Amino acid sequence: MAGDAVLLAVVSVLSACQQGYFAWQVGRARLKCKVMPPAVTGSLDFERVFRAQQNCVEFYPIFLITLWMAGLYFNEVLATCLGLVYLYSRQKYFSGYSQAAEKRLGGFQLSLCTLALLTGLSALGIANSFLSEYLGLHVAKRLKRYF
Amino acid sequence: MAGDAVLLAVVSVLSACQQGYFAWQVGRARLKCKVMPPAVTGSLDFERVFRAQQNCVEFYPIFLITLWMAGLYFNEVLATCLGLVYLYSRQKYFSGYSQAAEKRLGGFQLSLCTLALLTGLSALGIANSFLSEYLGLHVAKRLKRYF
Amino acid sequence: MAGDAVLLAVVSVLSACQQGYFAWQVGRARLKCKVMPPAVTGSLDFERVFRAQQNCVEFYPIFLITLWMAGLYFNEVLATCLGLVYLYSRQKYFSGYSQAAEKRLGGFQLSLCTLALLTGLSALGIANSFLSEYLGLHVAKRLKRYF
Repeated sequence: MAGDAVLLAVVSVLSACQQGYFAWQVGRARLKCKVMPPAVTGSLDFERVFRAQQNCVEFYPIFLITLWMAGLYFNEVLATCLGLVYLYSRQKYFSGYSQAAEKRLGGFQLSLCTLALLTGLSALGIANSFLSEYLGLHVAKRLKRYF
Repeated sequence: MAGDAVLLAVVSVLSACQQGYFAWQVGRARLKCKVMPPAVTGSLDFERVFRAQQNCVEFYPIFLITLWMAGLYFNEVLATCLGLVYLYSRQKYFSGYSQAAEKRLGGFQLSLCTLALLTGLSALGIANSFLSEYLGLHVAKRLKRYF
Repeated sequence: MAGDAVLLAVVSVLSACQQGYFAWQVGRARLKCKVMPPAVTGSLDFERVFRAQQNCVEFYPIFLITLWMAGLYFNEVLATCLGLVYLYSRQKYFSGYSQAAEKRLGGFQLSLCTLALLTGLSALGIANSFLSEYLGLHVAKRLKRYF
């Protein structure tokens, strides 16, 4: 596996760094807004940064699963590109939400579209693998003949 | 890897869709109970839906790890079946908790049992791989002779 | 994959058990401090245990990704050792934070150092794989000649 998924590995490590960056920003917002652990409320500015990070945490495993499934079962380069778009959309979401609650929507909608695409590609790729392994139907190979 | 773990891939993508569905339900509950971001308190109905989703988020990486480890090191079909039971139990937990706090217990206990089984199978499979790779003991092969 | 990553699999299943243990401790703290679901506030003792677990949940996917990337692309034994250090640091963090908010720092800093090391090793290993696959530069092989 080490050789044939290097692009997915690049995106995964980049996304892990991004998650670390978000967590670090929450720590900075804690100090700035004087919200002492274990409290997570008390300052609206802090709460926005915190919720932005929490939302990214919630969606992170969904992203990783669909990225790797789309990359391994459909197409690695396409999944990598969508992965980079997702990282960009989450950056936009996080910095938008940190400023004002209304500014979170643009990045959020882009991230949902990217996730939907990754999920669709995963489903297509997995369905093709499933049909060829369990039913002997090589759909993708037949389709390629026509193109 | 792409060909020999297609059942695990199916369960993983289904579980990612389920996590997306839970997140979407939280968004709907926000609108219905008029809890504006970044707040996550203020309405008991919203808080129940939110906590139900948060609990599913907390357990999701544990589920993914034990699903894949049990599937790759023990038996893919068995892990897939347990994975589907887990998805069902989480659906039951989420819809129960959304209605009333007491109704969360049935689904939750089923999900814990399934996770315990997946963890046990992972440990057995990994122990067998470990013994055969590092100590040259082929326990599973010897056991199979007697059955 | 099943045979050549058994040490990473061991650490992953151990870490999943640890996450389960943290979640169980939150449940116990709920009963002890009489914080009824869906509430997550009301007792400072409970809030500390809860925040400790939440922080572990947030960092768990980052840990898994960097553990596996460092193990698959750099060196499995080294990644496994760092993984065990991470589990120890999280245990220290959790038990410290459960007692007092100030006691969380030692374990937390150790966990961050370990994550930074795992991320660095991942990046090195992936960069080497990337260069050799896409540009034909076998950096690691050439370096080994000199040692």
